[in-house]
Amino acid sequence: MVLNYLIRLFMFQTLITIKDVYQQAEKLSKSEKLIKVGGWVKSSRESKEKKFIILNDGSTMNALQIIISRKNFLQLGLLEKINFGSGLLVSGRLVLTPGRQQSCELEVEKIELVNSTDNNYPLQKKNIPLGIVRNFPHLRAKTNYFLAVFRLRHSISKAIHEFFHQEGFYYAPTPIITSGDAEGAGETFTIHAKKEDFFNKEAKLTVSGQLQAESLAQGLGKVYTFAPCFRAEQSNTTRHLAEFWMVEPEMAFADLDVITNLAEKMVKWVVNFVLTNNYPELEHLEKHTQKELINRLRRLTKESWEKVDYSKCIEILIKNKENFILRDIKWGIDLQSEHEKYLCQYFNNKPIFIINYPQELKAFYMKNNPDGRTAACFDLIFPQVGELIGGSVREDNYQTLIGKTQRKKLNLENLSWYLNLRKYGYVPTAGFGLGLERLIMYISGAENIRDTISFPRYFKHSDF
Amino acid sequence: MVLNYLIRLFMFQTLITIKDVYQQAEKLSKSEKLIKVGGWVKSSRESKEKKFIILNDGSTMNALQIIISRKNFLQLGLLEKINFGSGLLVSGRLVLTPGRQQSCELEVEKIELVNSTDNNYPLQKKNIPLGIVRNFPHLRAKTNYFLAVFRLRHSISKAIHEFFHQEGFYYAPTPIITSGDAEGAGETFTIHAKKEDFFNKEAKLTVSGQLQAESLAQGLGKVYTFAPCFRAEQSNTTRHLAEFWMVEPEMAFADLDVITNLAEKMVKWVVNFVLTNNYPELEHLEKHTQKELINRLRRLTKESWEKVDYSKCIEILIKNKENFILRDIKWGIDLQSEHEKYLCQYFNNKPIFIINYPQELKAFYMKNNPDGRTAACFDLIFPQVGELIGGSVREDNYQTLIGKTQRKKLNLENLSWYLNLRKYGYVPTAGFGLGLERLIMYISGAENIRDTISFPRYFKHSDF
Repeated sequence: MVLNYLIRLFMFQTLITIKDVYQQAEKLSKSEKLIKVGGWVKSSRESKEKKFIILNDGSTMNALQIIISRKNFLQLGLLEKINFGSGLLVSGRLVLTPGRQQSCELEVEKIELVNSTDNNYPLQKKNIPLGIVRNFPHLRAKTNYFLAVFRLRHSISKAIHEFFHQEGFYYAPTPIITSGDAEGAGETFTIHAKKEDFFNKEAKLTVSGQLQAESLAQGLGKVYTFAPCFRAEQSNTTRHLAEFWMVEPEMAFADLDVITNLAEKMVKWVVNFVLTNNYPELEHLEKHTQKELINRLRRLTKESWEKVDYSKCIEILIKNKENFILRDIKWGIDLQSEHEKYLCQYFNNKPIFIINYPQELKAFYMKNNPDGRTAACFDLIFPQVGELIGGSVREDNYQTLIGKTQRKKLNLENLSWYLNLRKYGYVPTAGFGLGLERLIMYISGAENIRDTISFPRYFKHSDF
Repeated sequence: MVLNYLIRLFMFQTLITIKDVYQQAEKLSKSEKLIKVGGWVKSSRESKEKKFIILNDGSTMNALQIIISRKNFLQLGLLEKINFGSGLLVSGRLVLTPGRQQSCELEVEKIELVNSTDNNYPLQKKNIPLGIVRNFPHLRAKTNYFLAVFRLRHSISKAIHEFFHQEGFYYAPTPIITSGDAEGAGETFTIHAKKEDFFNKEAKLTVSGQLQAESLAQGLGKVYTFAPCFRAEQSNTTRHLAEFWMVEPEMAFADLDVITNLAEKMVKWVVNFVLTNNYPELEHLEKHTQKELINRLRRLTKESWEKVDYSKCIEILIKNKENFILRDIKWGIDLQSEHEKYLCQYFNNKPIFIINYPQELKAFYMKNNPDGRTAACFDLIFPQVGELIGGSVREDNYQTLIGKTQRKKLNLENLSWYLNLRKYGYVPTAGFGLGLERLIMYISGAENIRDTISFPRYFKHSDF
């Protein structure tokens, strides 16, 4: 046991990631010392003289080929124990292989089998259908598909933080637990502690951090949240989660034009970041799931997106109503996803901002337009995933806001702190909410939103 | 109303932040065009000929001095309406003022009073005691103290993301709602939906994302979480929140040495980032609350921190037991905060890693050491805030882990997915949990943890 411990100490000191192996291949191939990598067996094949193992450690999409020459390999019986999914530590010499698919490979001197997989391992084979892998959220990171999607998620998150930082926004936490009113955004989860009145009032899981973010923008000027939100909706679709992450910027002295421009700039920034930093992941996804993924993303960053009035959209839909299942189209209806899809196609299959929806369709806090019937708001609709972002200017007139609050039958007392902001040096703000997983769906080409988050929560699913 | 709208459109196009004013002062002072800023009145004073207003827009700690020459100012009656906290839009010419406290000021041509504060505004005066400001979480961002702390929080969060990114860690979400077992980390909140059996099992708010992060590390190699966690503890202290943010890295092929080094490197990285990017905020906090704050932070980045065995700590405490209220010190006791404080002092008032605690004191997942009685774990203790980080190597032996799980009387069935990881190509991992708000307390010098988060949640407090 002590020996084992000493071996480990030695081992940790010299480990190098496969990403670093590829980046420093030239130098490492000339090294006198053995190089050591650790990872999991992704596949293997045999010839008379040699065994080839593809090893990945999660640091990069590119796995490393390990070559064992049977003649020189002294660890008798070990190779037979190494199976698909085994965790290995491997020491050897790096050999450059210019012209081949991978630019280098490792000729093995010593292997430590850290742990093999037992007979009950559910992901024994390569290329197991997604539908089966989905049953094992705690093992999904062992498959190449999810390694690609989760690495994209990392980059998308990082790009969002960087974007807002360079735009002068402050990252601010808004509360997850709240006794505030749900502003009609959907069903909520309530929270209980053993001590019954842990909180004075009924406490719920937040559906949006926007109202709180607005109050922070009244001092910090520009803020954004990046936090989980919750909806207790039973919808069992490929586009909804009970627990998802929202990004909600809020900006003082902004109007609809400023905030829609910000949304467009943000999405393009994120897509550019991913195109620059995650080409291997995108290539993998394009090859295995969605054709033309990379070209679609490239095109997106170059187009400029239309801003179309809701009223104009209704005109277009009425003129083309034979295309729809729901044909009773008139000013005031909520657009269905078939309508949104059609509108994207109508405008050259690009994302569109639909702006100035009827007040009655939208939340109480959205600013009334001077026309008396629309609100200064927008939805950003993407051809593939539907609504990606929704936002608005916020109603700054105290009396108007009170009226809107009452018309929606919301609890004035619970909202009084929010309403009163209008009396304390209030300046107009605008903001939006981005559903992070929707954006990941769009960028990764994932067909099911449950594949974009490591432990998806939805109706009947809270395990692990 | 339409005119108002047009004025607004014009106004948004030309607005510049006060941060940019200072950064581009030289250029702006030569500009033909008026420059326009928007913000809130932080203070004002009068002379016979002039009125001086200090305006801040949240973009920087440095407010901008606005100078109104009464003789030339044509907007009659307006100045009287501008009060403390008012939201203003101001156009004027920038004048350089070398040698003065601020390097430039704005000579006003036109002011738009966007919104004044009414008589009920609770923060009418400068320098209102913290104890009063705390009652108005939605207004705290209007005070300089909280502007400084919240901006620090932004930078600290950004530095953490950057640190882990450059160390090759992937940012991964772990679930907030979980039916998993609480691993004895404290009281939990349970979750309910209108539809009673929304989730199949009892669902709770997470106390830690570690177990799930471990499973992700078995594919991605290095991961970290940055997410809210929850404890339903009634403790009404200045160091506990019911809702707080945790950062939990998990790293494959790591041992105690690797993971403690990572923790030390991370904290120093963050402090260096803040010293470089947030000097004005630190200066403000040092002046108004904590003396020697900046020197303390500088010193921290230069020291190297001791790693001391729990057993050695017990020896030291026994030798010096006359210093303590709790003097019944023997191997196996849980260290009290008076003990931890003493140990920091003993080691030159620096942070210390206490390592290898008795197994019985620590969570079931921590790896047993070969000595049979301690676990490969650590707490990082800071002189000012106590435990900042706790972490360990994870038990990799399936049978040992089952035994530890049973000894702690945890639900084997709920944990089976976690235990079974050990049979599926498991490689040793280590990780830690950083309480984000504790780190913000340390860096900002805040005396109450509730001041480090925008809407603090604790016993009896879920409003706003």
